[in-house]
Amino acid sequence: MGKYIIGIDVGGTNIQGGLIDPHGRIVSRAQVKTDAPLGADKVIERIAGIAGQLLEQSGVNRNEVAGIGAGVPGFIDVDRGVVLSAANLQWKDVPLAERLNNLTGLPVCIHHDVRMYVYGEAIQGAGRSFKHVLGLTIGTGLAAAYIDQGRILCGSKNMAGELGHIPMRGEQARCSCGMQGCLETVVSARGLIRQVTEAVRSGRPSRLAGLALREPGELTADAISAAYDEGDELAAEVYRHTGRLLGYGLAYAVTLLSPDVVIIGGGVASAGEKLLAPVRETLQASILPKYWSHLKIKTAQLGNDAGLIGSAAYARTKLDPLPE
Amino acid sequence: MGKYIIGIDVGGTNIQGGLIDPHGRIVSRAQVKTDAPLGADKVIERIAGIAGQLLEQSGVNRNEVAGIGAGVPGFIDVDRGVVLSAANLQWKDVPLAERLNNLTGLPVCIHHDVRMYVYGEAIQGAGRSFKHVLGLTIGTGLAAAYIDQGRILCGSKNMAGELGHIPMRGEQARCSCGMQGCLETVVSARGLIRQVTEAVRSGRPSRLAGLALREPGELTADAISAAYDEGDELAAEVYRHTGRLLGYGLAYAVTLLSPDVVIIGGGVASAGEKLLAPVRETLQASILPKYWSHLKIKTAQLGNDAGLIGSAAYARTKLDPLPE
Repeated sequence: MGKYIIGIDVGGTNIQGGLIDPHGRIVSRAQVKTDAPLGADKVIERIAGIAGQLLEQSGVNRNEVAGIGAGVPGFIDVDRGVVLSAANLQWKDVPLAERLNNLTGLPVCIHHDVRMYVYGEAIQGAGRSFKHVLGLTIGTGLAAAYIDQGRILCGSKNMAGELGHIPMRGEQARCSCGMQGCLETVVSARGLIRQVTEAVRSGRPSRLAGLALREPGELTADAISAAYDEGDELAAEVYRHTGRLLGYGLAYAVTLLSPDVVIIGGGVASAGEKLLAPVRETLQASILPKYWSHLKIKTAQLGNDAGLIGSAAYARTKLDPLPE
Repeated sequence: MGKYIIGIDVGGTNIQGGLIDPHGRIVSRAQVKTDAPLGADKVIERIAGIAGQLLEQSGVNRNEVAGIGAGVPGFIDVDRGVVLSAANLQWKDVPLAERLNNLTGLPVCIHHDVRMYVYGEAIQGAGRSFKHVLGLTIGTGLAAAYIDQGRILCGSKNMAGELGHIPMRGEQARCSCGMQGCLETVVSARGLIRQVTEAVRSGRPSRLAGLALREPGELTADAISAAYDEGDELAAEVYRHTGRLLGYGLAYAVTLLSPDVVIIGGGVASAGEKLLAPVRETLQASILPKYWSHLKIKTAQLGNDAGLIGSAAYARTKLDPLPE
């Protein structure tokens, strides 16, 4: 019989924790504000606090717990358990695993948050019956990871899977990464908002014009989705272009990686068919039938739990592996 | 001390074999025509014949040999050792491993020829000091494989790595696969010849005009390379476009896979800097500096031996693994 595992999802705003039983079920939850400006020490104390709270809440004994798995938004040295850099948290070279181990007495395994999100979906969510899983999250930005028969494709310096920074011919917008025309400049909440704002500024009529011309921050991806539902032509056009571009980007990824399933999650994915219909159409037209015929396109199933479920499940492979 | 391994590279024209010693050196070689039209039985007998010949030539005893590794151009079920289909050989569902084992008494491990070529370069050639190796061969077509820390990325149904069939926006030519605008329609010997022929037919002057307007088959990639050296502007332009397009294709692959090194082999790669200069220029402009700063672009080093060296090295991991 396996042990319990604590899964932690460290976000820029909140830290979420869950105690996962040997069957992969969340039996206890806790959440706390990240308050990153207080510094790494305080944040690590909060993570340790969540671990303690989860045990207390559930009555599970520390020696029934195999360890802690944590997903962190940044560049991670997985083997050494060090967060090399995390822009959202303003961390640099933080030995998270060691320090969390000192505070809790539990073994700790850390990894990149998006990889843990996709790992969670791959193992227990929309990808659980597939061997080769490509997962993406479309939120403020666009991130992705590929899980090949349970192994996370990391690549040199852990830099594999940067679907958001694939250069798209014909796209010109400046990306936050410093490059031009990255897929993320279109396929992201920021990208949707930029497209609407630019069109409105150039005189295109839209019921979003008022919002788009106000202070930055007023226009949201949700507002664009709502305008689409109300029949706004600009909103429809922007979703069509965004979906088509994602279809092209996925065509490259599918042709190179050959996943069984593509899982699409994150806030922008909640637009559903507005986005997915043009994705499917472009993808089908852009990949060989031998790929398309068995490829599944699915939306993520675990919602906000994917990250902590993935972190726990991945940590289990390292800290409490099942007998072969 | 490890054993000897027989490496076999089954091509559409020739079957090449080599006896590889425990240090990875080729100690004996043999070659025979494939004569695929004679049928699978005859071809398999010839492969078995090569294995026997290698032992005889070298005086190595059968019990010093761990087995046979063979690379075959087609879709392979690696686990079952079956060639599902191989267009060049006109094979369908041929249980090659079993039948070769019956004929030779040796264990047999088969895999896809391009993957074995890249595996050879990754383990013993231009990639031997790197962990994450993307390799491609540009010949009649364009094929690729990715070796991640010694593991071959195969994907669902063994269809990963189809770099040649990435759809390139803006390209219109019909591909042999039935799609339009695949990278291979430009980046391949066929692609170079097509570009020159189309330009000449539309009236572009070139010293290649005579060749291009004769029977198909007269104009070769080598002739285009030679024309470039003689200052032909059309040839220069065609190489520039081809290199740039390969740069874009590699930008997608590098961003998704994060290799340490890209190895370029095959006949067309012998054009060297004519092709590689625009590849590098486009690639550098199209990927994040964090990739470019440590990425190496290299030409293949093992020539025609890469396939049999790779087949033997891969077979060793299955049939005669080194102690950990």
